Amino acid sequence: MELLLTDPLDMHLHLREGEMLRTVAPLSAKDFAAGVIMPNLQQPVDSLVRLLAYRDEVGKALSQYLFTPLMTLFFKNYSEKELLEARPHILGIKLYPAGITTQSESGVRDIRGAYKTFELLEELRIPLLVHGESNGFVMDREREFISVYQQVARDFPQLHLIMEHITTADAVRFLDSSDKVSATVTLHHLLITLDDVAGNMLEPDLFCKPIAKTPHDRETLRQAVFSGHPRLMFGSDSAPHPRHKKECCGCAAGIFSAPVALPLLAQMFEEQGCLDKLQGFVSDIAKQRYGLPEFGKTVRLSKENWKVPELYDTVRPFYAGQTLQWTATI
Amino acid sequence: MELLLTDPLDMHLHLREGEMLRTVAPLSAKDFAAGVIMPNLQQPVDSLVRLLAYRDEVGKALSQYLFTPLMTLFFKNYSEKELLEARPHILGIKLYPAGITTQSESGVRDIRGAYKTFELLEELRIPLLVHGESNGFVMDREREFISVYQQVARDFPQLHLIMEHITTADAVRFLDSSDKVSATVTLHHLLITLDDVAGNMLEPDLFCKPIAKTPHDRETLRQAVFSGHPRLMFGSDSAPHPRHKKECCGCAAGIFSAPVALPLLAQMFEEQGCLDKLQGFVSDIAKQRYGLPEFGKTVRLSKENWKVPELYDTVRPFYAGQTLQWTATI
Repeated sequence: MELLLTDPLDMHLHLREGEMLRTVAPLSAKDFAAGVIMPNLQQPVDSLVRLLAYRDEVGKALSQYLFTPLMTLFFKNYSEKELLEARPHILGIKLYPAGITTQSESGVRDIRGAYKTFELLEELRIPLLVHGESNGFVMDREREFISVYQQVARDFPQLHLIMEHITTADAVRFLDSSDKVSATVTLHHLLITLDDVAGNMLEPDLFCKPIAKTPHDRETLRQAVFSGHPRLMFGSDSAPHPRHKKECCGCAAGIFSAPVALPLLAQMFEEQGCLDKLQGFVSDIAKQRYGLPEFGKTVRLSKENWKVPELYDTVRPFYAGQTLQWTATI
Repeated sequence: MELLLTDPLDMHLHLREGEMLRTVAPLSAKDFAAGVIMPNLQQPVDSLVRLLAYRDEVGKALSQYLFTPLMTLFFKNYSEKELLEARPHILGIKLYPAGITTQSESGVRDIRGAYKTFELLEELRIPLLVHGESNGFVMDREREFISVYQQVARDFPQLHLIMEHITTADAVRFLDSSDKVSATVTLHHLLITLDDVAGNMLEPDLFCKPIAKTPHDRETLRQAVFSGHPRLMFGSDSAPHPRHKKECCGCAAGIFSAPVALPLLAQMFEEQGCLDKLQGFVSDIAKQRYGLPEFGKTVRLSKENWKVPELYDTVRPFYAGQTLQWTATI
């Protein structure tokens, strides 16, 4: 059995820099036609100069691949001139709400402090991608942030607002209620819950942000994806860390899922009897929501067992050492 | 400032065996008059022969200390003869409900399968200490188990049932409603929440079972303790692991709090303005609930800074490297 996917897209991807970039970027570029490249480098990508330099670095690591890096700028209060100059080069602006707590006055002031820029984004039709978590209790952070999403969606009705890597039934409910809002969801949040991270032993390789939630949350996300939710797109949030940042006290958050994303998605969608929904989830919905062009890449998924490597250089992938039922080839 | 505590008791303590026992037992014996020694060794303590051998081993490690190990047997369906023989040597029987899920028929059958022994315990006035968690989602396990506590308390009204290491507001609510039921609470569940384990980096040293819960749960536990709840006793659940079981993928659950327990408790009770409640929490309530004798030990807590060691042999203690405001001496 095989399946041809047209232009698979990873709508949320961390490629890092330097050596790590050169290790992980080809693993995404092999399977995907394009990816939304996150700007949270050690020094954030918050100017057009930095963005073009980063895009160059990404391009060099991927010169042998048919892969388009869809770049994002790190949110700050940009001027209209800056946004106009950046617009041809970016997919959108990524907001990390450090310091926002939805239940505090200062939190509200913070988000209002971004309104001037939100107005420009709305006017210039630049999407706003948001890491939607409060600074509250770890299991409540996404739910607590939904009031901010509500407020921004209400106050900027023409802004394309994207809730990144949603993890909760509450986020799905808000997405259901808001025609203008899109969302991405990762592979791992469709597969794991907090039980996998801390239910038995502590599993650093499954520790990510937002943290994996409850079985009910996971089931709600799965139902939305498998039923072909028209505004819910795949974004791996694949986030590599070298072993020494994982096997230690105080380990870093992030799951490296890029190399297994398409095979595992095919396996899941097949198990659910909805393989016909996969093309939409990994490409068509994102193209429609963002108005993306055709990239002209076809990826072949074959139902052939494939054993996931234990390591890619220093990085342990999601499902390391396990055998998947599908493989991806050009 | 100083405070004299009469017979401090640790009502839930893991001393392990061999080298580890010799490392950790003196650290409890220095500060406490007695401790309830858990029977979950690699080979559980589930016969009088094994219990007496283990008590001997504990005794040898503590020959220089005024400390009484209050022994427990690992729950199984003992005969009346076995229980009668064991009774003079034990404080109670400790039940670990592996396989019990409260929401499944098999779970109910499991607990009913223990009823014959519960009857004997009730008749012979042997306390039943319970690790009360279901096999459900990690944050729900204690709450889900409360229906089992309710059922056992109802069906065996004269049985002294002790909910070990409670962590939730639900458990406090059940304790409030049940005059015959007692509970222990650890030091760490009065101090940390899941945020400390997984809210920022992943912190193996704060990973324990039951897992730390929500800020609301912690606050409810603190209020119960600081108000002098008449059936809530201190039990550290101090559980040492060597570093190599903590600094690894798939780290083991357990916090080693014995060396810091009394100083940290004094600090907390002082901050809350209820130092007068500390004697009850760490001794009087347990003596009353279990009918324990006087042990004749006095421990002096002095308000003097004390820097907690980074390691005791291979074991990292709770609050390692931090400075506490109180120290304990004989």
